[in-house]
Amino acid sequence: MSDISNKAKEAARAARGLALAEASAKNKTLAALRDGLRASAAAILAANGRDAESARAEGLSPHMLDRLRLDEARLEELAGAVAAVMELDDPIGRLEDERVLPTGLKVARRRIPLGLIAFICEARPGALAEAGALAIKSGNGLIVKCGREMADTAAALQQVFAAAFEKTGLPAAAVTILPTLSREDLRELLSLSETIDLVIPRGGEGLIRFVSENSRIPVLKHYKGVCHLYVDQGADHHQALALLVNGKTQRPSTCNSLETLLVHRDEAAAFLPLAHDRLGALNVVFKADPEALPFMPTAVPAEEGDFGREFLNLTLAVKVVRDFEAALAHIAAYGSNHTEVIATRDRDRAELFLKAVDAGCVMVNASSRLNDGGALGLGAEIGISTTKLHAYGPMGLREMTSAKFVVVGEGHLRG
Amino acid sequence: MSDISNKAKEAARAARGLALAEASAKNKTLAALRDGLRASAAAILAANGRDAESARAEGLSPHMLDRLRLDEARLEELAGAVAAVMELDDPIGRLEDERVLPTGLKVARRRIPLGLIAFICEARPGALAEAGALAIKSGNGLIVKCGREMADTAAALQQVFAAAFEKTGLPAAAVTILPTLSREDLRELLSLSETIDLVIPRGGEGLIRFVSENSRIPVLKHYKGVCHLYVDQGADHHQALALLVNGKTQRPSTCNSLETLLVHRDEAAAFLPLAHDRLGALNVVFKADPEALPFMPTAVPAEEGDFGREFLNLTLAVKVVRDFEAALAHIAAYGSNHTEVIATRDRDRAELFLKAVDAGCVMVNASSRLNDGGALGLGAEIGISTTKLHAYGPMGLREMTSAKFVVVGEGHLRG
Repeated sequence: MSDISNKAKEAARAARGLALAEASAKNKTLAALRDGLRASAAAILAANGRDAESARAEGLSPHMLDRLRLDEARLEELAGAVAAVMELDDPIGRLEDERVLPTGLKVARRRIPLGLIAFICEARPGALAEAGALAIKSGNGLIVKCGREMADTAAALQQVFAAAFEKTGLPAAAVTILPTLSREDLRELLSLSETIDLVIPRGGEGLIRFVSENSRIPVLKHYKGVCHLYVDQGADHHQALALLVNGKTQRPSTCNSLETLLVHRDEAAAFLPLAHDRLGALNVVFKADPEALPFMPTAVPAEEGDFGREFLNLTLAVKVVRDFEAALAHIAAYGSNHTEVIATRDRDRAELFLKAVDAGCVMVNASSRLNDGGALGLGAEIGISTTKLHAYGPMGLREMTSAKFVVVGEGHLRG
Repeated sequence: MSDISNKAKEAARAARGLALAEASAKNKTLAALRDGLRASAAAILAANGRDAESARAEGLSPHMLDRLRLDEARLEELAGAVAAVMELDDPIGRLEDERVLPTGLKVARRRIPLGLIAFICEARPGALAEAGALAIKSGNGLIVKCGREMADTAAALQQVFAAAFEKTGLPAAAVTILPTLSREDLRELLSLSETIDLVIPRGGEGLIRFVSENSRIPVLKHYKGVCHLYVDQGADHHQALALLVNGKTQRPSTCNSLETLLVHRDEAAAFLPLAHDRLGALNVVFKADPEALPFMPTAVPAEEGDFGREFLNLTLAVKVVRDFEAALAHIAAYGSNHTEVIATRDRDRAELFLKAVDAGCVMVNASSRLNDGGALGLGAEIGISTTKLHAYGPMGLREMTSAKFVVVGEGHLRG
């Protein structure tokens, strides 16, 4: 048997132990992890410095280099995130839908971990540390494949995880960070459907497509976030503009940033010049459809493919729509089921937007950037799903669990 | 584009219409379906008679012939099942986990349909009719591939569904029953991951393996039910015997029937002779491990493979276990994550069994035959899942839905 298969089996065994652990033992492990991140800061940052230097020398993109790099502040943030996960309610063992049937049979559902989750990420040490903390809290094993650009950082983090487990006696293999894998090795990992219960990839569209196309294990993921803001007839322009600025410019490289602005025809003449000047001053460039162009002096004409594109930078596609239904139709055609926003003062259309739009997160008068496990009150997230099976939208602790039926009778029979 | 792809696209479009339908319109369609099953009884039974005759001539197994055949009583039962689905609460649009964050942002989850479900069954007209009713109630489209043995019955049912939709104006293509498909056509259907959201196969292990191995779409299924009854130290023999008789003999061809009896060593001498005589009188045959054999005069020695086997007939594997932990270990090694039962008077071991056993349904002092959507109070079921993602155990209306985040702010921004 291969080394990868053996490691996965060992992680799965450890996960079965973690599944039965008490909340107190899991929390003690998380406290040790938080303390370990602080105590080992020098070693982690040194390793990360080596990784960053090699990555820079090899010409890693600035966007990826930014995600790779840790500093004291970022590490303290991660320790804080681990502590926050520790404070969350333990979902495991919770009874739901408890009822006593007319026959006297007692039926409930009991929350259980999913088992072993494979977490596939690029050079994102922060995402890895958070995923490990969430796995421990939810009683799941985690087997991690991360980009070779963070090999040294990953090794340092693996030591911190192992030391935390050692302190509480929970099985250390429950968080297994694999050394750098070839694509062939990754394919093997993704074939272990008897051992691994779920795959969560985090990274660019290329990685996610590779994982989806090669996995024999269910995958929860989003390919991309093509998020729209629709400025409705009669919308508050001041508020809509604030949503637009925040959604487009606060952190344009993220999946919950805006890519397309849709404006109701009646608002175009007043709203688009405002948007043009305000965003223009923030270095946003515009690709506008023919109806929007006249109101946006610096805009270039939108080309085939600009609608539905995830720019991940300061580019915004702009389109004027005939009416509310045309906005819904555009979003249905070009959206990516990630985050969709309406700016409106009309309660009926707000309600209809929430009902009709098919996305993991649908918002009224709120910034798309708020679609995030932390900002929505889930505590933390391990990823975002844009398909409806098992989870839709940000995935927190609860989405890392399942529920089994537990039934108690007094000799109840059928028929 | 192929005919199958076109039909699936049409069904998906219709599903989007059904997703937005009011509960009252869906219920009227179900009422029309119920009435249609009664009004068209003669035509359905005639078609089913033709199917059954051909199937008998071609030598279909008695077990499958039994599932294929309809009569007036069975048809009336189906009309009743449709009416029961109509009476269930509509899950769609329900708000869950509503909360107002400290910032004033309102966050909730709203139940939505999954979209389009492919239902792949053998010759089971009853399962098809129930699945159609559940799909309508849950706002999902259903595209059905059923065995050629029920081709005429399927065509008759398709007419009844179409007439019901016509009465209420909901899109008829939302329940599309395909004509007989070749394996090649089925493969094509299973590749339509952009159009179909979920596949649910119902049938023998061969069909289910074929579907799982060839699908690019997520599949919810169970391969088989290898269900255990563990008679604990100090168990009530009278009650345990009743659970054993019901679990083994009430309908042995079903997946929630018992295949293996585990008996604590201290109970073997008293319990096994009782079980032997009572089940023996009901034509059960025994395959016993060396420790059980002396207490069961007609038993033959269990062979390699008898533990973990789904007999689907009146054969029972029997094993004496050293203690409670050995019973847990046996179930972990040989169970199929379907239904597991303990007969016990000990509250701590009952609780530990419910906690530790990994199965979609874990039971204390209740018959395994009660693991069924109807018997557990779900109203009806579209299938049973033995994997944990999305659903574990019987899948009712709720498991045919997902939930999106709906967020309402007053200009809320990030950061």
